[in-house]
Amino acid sequence: MRNILVTIPVTEEELSRLKAACPDGVFTLIPKEKLDAKAVKDKEIIIGNIPKELVPECGKLRLLELNMAGTDGYPELMPEGAVLVNSSGAYGLAISEHMLGMLLAIKKKLYLYYDNQHDSLWRDEGGVTSIEDAYVLSVGMGDIGGEFTRKCKALGAYTVGIRRNVREKPDYADEMHTLDELDLLLPLADVVALSLPSGAATRGLMDERRLRMMKKGAVLINVGRGNAIVTDDLVRVLNDGHIYAALDVVDPEPLPAEHPLWKAPNVFITPHISGFFHLRQTLERIIAIAEENLKRFSSGEPLLNVVDSKTGYRGCENRA
Amino acid sequence: MRNILVTIPVTEEELSRLKAACPDGVFTLIPKEKLDAKAVKDKEIIIGNIPKELVPECGKLRLLELNMAGTDGYPELMPEGAVLVNSSGAYGLAISEHMLGMLLAIKKKLYLYYDNQHDSLWRDEGGVTSIEDAYVLSVGMGDIGGEFTRKCKALGAYTVGIRRNVREKPDYADEMHTLDELDLLLPLADVVALSLPSGAATRGLMDERRLRMMKKGAVLINVGRGNAIVTDDLVRVLNDGHIYAALDVVDPEPLPAEHPLWKAPNVFITPHISGFFHLRQTLERIIAIAEENLKRFSSGEPLLNVVDSKTGYRGCENRA
Repeated sequence: MRNILVTIPVTEEELSRLKAACPDGVFTLIPKEKLDAKAVKDKEIIIGNIPKELVPECGKLRLLELNMAGTDGYPELMPEGAVLVNSSGAYGLAISEHMLGMLLAIKKKLYLYYDNQHDSLWRDEGGVTSIEDAYVLSVGMGDIGGEFTRKCKALGAYTVGIRRNVREKPDYADEMHTLDELDLLLPLADVVALSLPSGAATRGLMDERRLRMMKKGAVLINVGRGNAIVTDDLVRVLNDGHIYAALDVVDPEPLPAEHPLWKAPNVFITPHISGFFHLRQTLERIIAIAEENLKRFSSGEPLLNVVDSKTGYRGCENRA
Repeated sequence: MRNILVTIPVTEEELSRLKAACPDGVFTLIPKEKLDAKAVKDKEIIIGNIPKELVPECGKLRLLELNMAGTDGYPELMPEGAVLVNSSGAYGLAISEHMLGMLLAIKKKLYLYYDNQHDSLWRDEGGVTSIEDAYVLSVGMGDIGGEFTRKCKALGAYTVGIRRNVREKPDYADEMHTLDELDLLLPLADVVALSLPSGAATRGLMDERRLRMMKKGAVLINVGRGNAIVTDDLVRVLNDGHIYAALDVVDPEPLPAEHPLWKAPNVFITPHISGFFHLRQTLERIIAIAEENLKRFSSGEPLLNVVDSKTGYRGCENRA
């Protein structure tokens, strides 16, 4: 008998599938917001995020399956002997489509036309650019960055990926490089898409020096962690009209109402909403990963999406 | 010696290519806006649109090469013995990317987030939908509709095309049908994309009855001709919240400032700008078609993109 806690919303049919994947499980369903120390202390497996302050209360924890693509702050809290896995793979579709939408909104000047529509104004705003033949630099090639790159390639872009280890080149990448080559690649790119996990190695990556290395008129997208960009530097560079930015994550979050980034030119901000469970398929994928991992845990097989507690990255053998 | 008039903007390099394609040509460059009867009366070949009222003045005309994808009103004006060709094939990239951008802006609620950004408001607007697994019905499968369908297929949609003659099914279409099956297909579609030429057969195609046959929450896109949709009917159906609409063409154009469509809910309007020469690649493609047709005209070979003067459609042998 295993005590299993599920904190994500599941349908009856989905719960049946999870139960079938772990026949000796005793399942308790409590949303994250309603959890307390008592609810977690006897749980051996937890499916879904829990408040970080409750992790030390998980005395019996053997497996924590986060419903997020990253691992923000969880690895260092994990009790000895417990395994952390995440739901990387679940968010690629939702977030890459959001990235593509923001990119096209900027390239096709849709935000200008939307403002004009409010004024009932029929006015041509002039030239646009294309994804076809654009040089797209994807910094981070996990599930999200990889899926965005694949979509850009299908739309005719020249695609260049950056990841920690360049061990293999996916079909949809024209080139693969490592992060230490970033400064050589930034001046070439029409689109720079950041989908990096949080961590010391990526904090402040895009500072004023690097932002100014980008081509004039290029588009910077960020859907990873807000602190990969130095916000004050970005505001300065945007105010000079040097680049465009499409940001679903910013630093700080939520962005205070008085922050100058809101009113900077050529920026499009969405409030960290590209992921979550906003797309039906995302939750379906999270549950499919959980189901598979329950089966593997029961049978002692290697789990999917295991996170290295030191780096916060998934182990290489599991990388998409 | 042939008198050739060019009304589209060309670079020196492009003009040299056109000259090489027709060595016995004498080239005159005059923009459409500056043309008069005198400028056209001795021209045997005209590359680019001219004002329609000047067509009867073209006493020597043998070939008119429009720079547009459609043929609006030109076929019936053509003098006996002159051939009309258009630039279908040049606009697929520009317009299909614009369609994709508008579709994603609606599906990802980007217009709501852009309004919120103006108010410095960090607010989650809830669930979204995806192009992956969406049922995309493309009414019109010429260059523009075909290219949009190909993009949707690459992004994971289920794609259904409608055209006059279903002689072959492109790889990127899961199904092909004819227009008389429209009423059976409309209730199935998550996205209905109209890229139809103007003409009696398509005028008023989407009236209130057909608009209400669409799924609740489905997206109607129009980039063909505005009069394919009955505007007053669309306003009524939008006001009921039944569907979303993304329109680059409307009826009438320009849309008067007081028209209720501007303020209808769930509509995104751009002012017939997805084509023109707003994308560099469009003009490059128009010139490439002109260059090839000059070569063929000189050597007596069959031309590309010949328009049937009765239907306004290109002949089948030239269809993309």
